[in-house]
Amino acid sequence: VPCGPLLAERLQIQPEVREALHSGRPVVALESTIISHGMPYPQNVETALQVEAAVRDQGAVPATMAIQEGRLCIGLSTAQIDTLGRAGHAATKVSRRDLASVLSQGGLGATTVASTMMLAAWAGIRIFATGGIGGVHRGGERSMDISADLQELARTPVAVVCAGAKSILDLGLTLEYLETHGVPVVGYQTDELPAFFSRESGHAVPLRRDSPGSLAQLLHTHWGLGLSSGCVVAHPIAPEHALDADQIDDTIARALDEAERQGIHGKAVTPFLLARVNELSGGRSLASNIQLVLGNARLAAQTAVSLSALSALNAPGAA
Amino acid sequence: VPCGPLLAERLQIQPEVREALHSGRPVVALESTIISHGMPYPQNVETALQVEAAVRDQGAVPATMAIQEGRLCIGLSTAQIDTLGRAGHAATKVSRRDLASVLSQGGLGATTVASTMMLAAWAGIRIFATGGIGGVHRGGERSMDISADLQELARTPVAVVCAGAKSILDLGLTLEYLETHGVPVVGYQTDELPAFFSRESGHAVPLRRDSPGSLAQLLHTHWGLGLSSGCVVAHPIAPEHALDADQIDDTIARALDEAERQGIHGKAVTPFLLARVNELSGGRSLASNIQLVLGNARLAAQTAVSLSALSALNAPGAA
Amino acid sequence: VPCGPLLAERLQIQPEVREALHSGRPVVALESTIISHGMPYPQNVETALQVEAAVRDQGAVPATMAIQEGRLCIGLSTAQIDTLGRAGHAATKVSRRDLASVLSQGGLGATTVASTMMLAAWAGIRIFATGGIGGVHRGGERSMDISADLQELARTPVAVVCAGAKSILDLGLTLEYLETHGVPVVGYQTDELPAFFSRESGHAVPLRRDSPGSLAQLLHTHWGLGLSSGCVVAHPIAPEHALDADQIDDTIARALDEAERQGIHGKAVTPFLLARVNELSGGRSLASNIQLVLGNARLAAQTAVSLSALSALNAPGAA
Ligand SMILES: [Mn+2]
Ligand SMILES: [Mn+2]
Ligand SMILES: [Mn+2]
Repeated sequence: VPCGPLLAERLQIQPEVREALHSGRPVVALESTIISHGMPYPQNVETALQVEAAVRDQGAVPATMAIQEGRLCIGLSTAQIDTLGRAGHAATKVSRRDLASVLSQGGLGATTVASTMMLAAWAGIRIFATGGIGGVHRGGERSMDISADLQELARTPVAVVCAGAKSILDLGLTLEYLETHGVPVVGYQTDELPAFFSRESGHAVPLRRDSPGSLAQLLHTHWGLGLSSGCVVAHPIAPEHALDADQIDDTIARALDEAERQGIHGKAVTPFLLARVNELSGGRSLASNIQLVLGNARLAAQTAVSLSALSALNAPGAA
Repeated sequence: VPCGPLLAERLQIQPEVREALHSGRPVVALESTIISHGMPYPQNVETALQVEAAVRDQGAVPATMAIQEGRLCIGLSTAQIDTLGRAGHAATKVSRRDLASVLSQGGLGATTVASTMMLAAWAGIRIFATGGIGGVHRGGERSMDISADLQELARTPVAVVCAGAKSILDLGLTLEYLETHGVPVVGYQTDELPAFFSRESGHAVPLRRDSPGSLAQLLHTHWGLGLSSGCVVAHPIAPEHALDADQIDDTIARALDEAERQGIHGKAVTPFLLARVNELSGGRSLASNIQLVLGNARLAAQTAVSLSALSALNAPGAA
Repeated sequence: VPCGPLLAERLQIQPEVREALHSGRPVVALESTIISHGMPYPQNVETALQVEAAVRDQGAVPATMAIQEGRLCIGLSTAQIDTLGRAGHAATKVSRRDLASVLSQGGLGATTVASTMMLAAWAGIRIFATGGIGGVHRGGERSMDISADLQELARTPVAVVCAGAKSILDLGLTLEYLETHGVPVVGYQTDELPAFFSRESGHAVPLRRDSPGSLAQLLHTHWGLGLSSGCVVAHPIAPEHALDADQIDDTIARALDEAERQGIHGKAVTPFLLARVNELSGGRSLASNIQLVLGNARLAAQTAVSLSALSALNAPGAA
């Protein structure tokens, strides 16, 4: 990941995270758009803190990302998470193209999958947990509406543990795009790409691993060769939290239809759909969303633990 | 920007440009396809010299780019500009893929947006003024006819001051493509992407700046972080030179139709359309085109002046 | 090409290849999916050995690539080629995204165009001969089914000598994609992209060279500037081995239709189609395929010889 001369003064790494990175202990990156744009207050803050606790429970240090007062924040205090949670849509949703703008104006920014990967890579964090990545939107073969997350995965060496792509997207086209760009998509204990709220999508994944250790081995080899891409770790939601696939599909179709009729577009689409799907599902989709993020945080932490053990084994001076 | 071992002997930087770069004074890159393929002789040469004068008026040094006798020319003499202007379509229109070919054969090459960005980056020039960038062609979601300028913007750290994308393109799809690839698009004193000959397109831009200083601050931060992409600075034509949007749209539609019926394709399309639109508009589109390039040259020069002041502030040894 | 800390221990370069590379003598990379997935045993092994002999006849050293027992093998013994040939579809077809997975599990992997380019670049080999590159599939503007070979060509500095793209693809869209990504496509003694089994496709190529020496000069300049992309060298099949374009088109259309009706997809498509086209053509397509690969191997070797002479001329300490 290229680093410029201004980076050092702009990066603000929380002491606990800094120390973990310095001593080679496992760290898991977490995004913040889910806090500002993904859930209502105060559920967003409660969830963010639960996710951090889940990472700690597995022996890793959480690093939630944000942009605040001209700094790239790697790891947030509870007060900072609360600020973001209260700000909600008043915080700017920051992707790669917006990063310098928000940073140079000193505004409050929440990181997407793409910008979280960038901040993680700059700080030296390799594993990141989230709900779902962006992808090719339904109809994206005509609209060319394709999330910058996919190009970020093509170039930035961070593994994203997720329940696949957000369910409002076209999963088949998203897989094709990732294949073209050489990004590994690894099913965790599955041969199928999960469909976010449900465990199956009908789309096969090209690779599969069944333990955090073998996943870490794959990532260690990938980056050890010098490959600079990220990796999608597709982790299905636990069966007890999964929603019925047909029912949630109908709900999503209805929300998509409303978005189109109301002329919602650009970066407002995803937050609108997530909120609307939640209303239409009587709050069940939000409950599932929280559970799948917690599950991803645990797997990410376990993988970070394994990866840091492998890195220590291979470090110069190791026995 | 990667530099190979042959680059030093192939780069031919005009003394005035070399000295400006050496001492950190502002330089503005200019393309030459507009000279060879964009306008008839002698208007093309007159315009090129006016554009250079506009850059100087604002306190920067112009560097018009071309390929001549096996050299990458950074800055041209009046005689060299005249040679290109007389050559017209006999000069090769050189994009990234053609660069080594024309260079190794010693031919005369005019630079597109993509190759001008490359030459600028090799020489250390960060600001470039032109009329409009290439983009996704109308119907490009089916034809996959997408200008190499967009990939160049995705990877080469040069800001292109322009009146948006050429009006013969699909502006909405062009914005989507740039978003996917993480390229900032900054409206200058506007929230809307201009439509080349007219000031409005109905497409919102994601970012906005209102002064050369704040624009320079954004670019300084972007590249200071180590981000390697370019930036589109979308500068609307001055109101007094703008054409009526509906009228010019009809003219473009007619020219596109003729191009299709006559089987014009590939890199011949853009020059054909620009020439035909000019005929159909009774010369008014050419007059507007010249004015918008002059306006872009002035803004580019002002931005280069601000950027070089910022760089001096941040240079090692600065007070 | 970025190299990671694990690369050195994973690269296994055959002594003959290593010595040639060390002393600046010409080497030609060869892929191995054609062995495992492209032809039946024992024709696949016989052909692979004939192709290696053709490279030697022109004064270069062949380096067939594979992944075996956790090693990236640059150059195979006859026994290793036989192992791959017998394994057939039991070997994994390895593209960029699969590389670390197969490597970390110790499995047997055959290299595609994309992964052969990667291994070649890591070893310092610049010229690669194959049958045809992957590209945009027919209907790819809707399905987004675009081979990772094209992105590899956009980023990895290896020239691929081929008979164009595989004939089951959409050649026009493939050319558009390569243009957008700045990849030179050079017709060898032709102004037209060949259509694999036949010499003409109706699609113009942007560049042309007529001798190995002038081709090497172009490549030497391209990489000498620091450009990191590959290059497609489009070499038409010899007239005496070409198939009738209309007839083979009908055969391909029929095979594509069968693939769709049988639900073949993903990386199984190309092997299925090649096998089915061969059956439908009564074995004539396989005979042509072998001849065109032999022709490409000879041209690649001649080009490698020229390129190594140019590099020696320009090496530090050369007279
Ligand atoms: Mn979008
Ligand atoms: Mn084009
Ligand atoms: Mn495919």
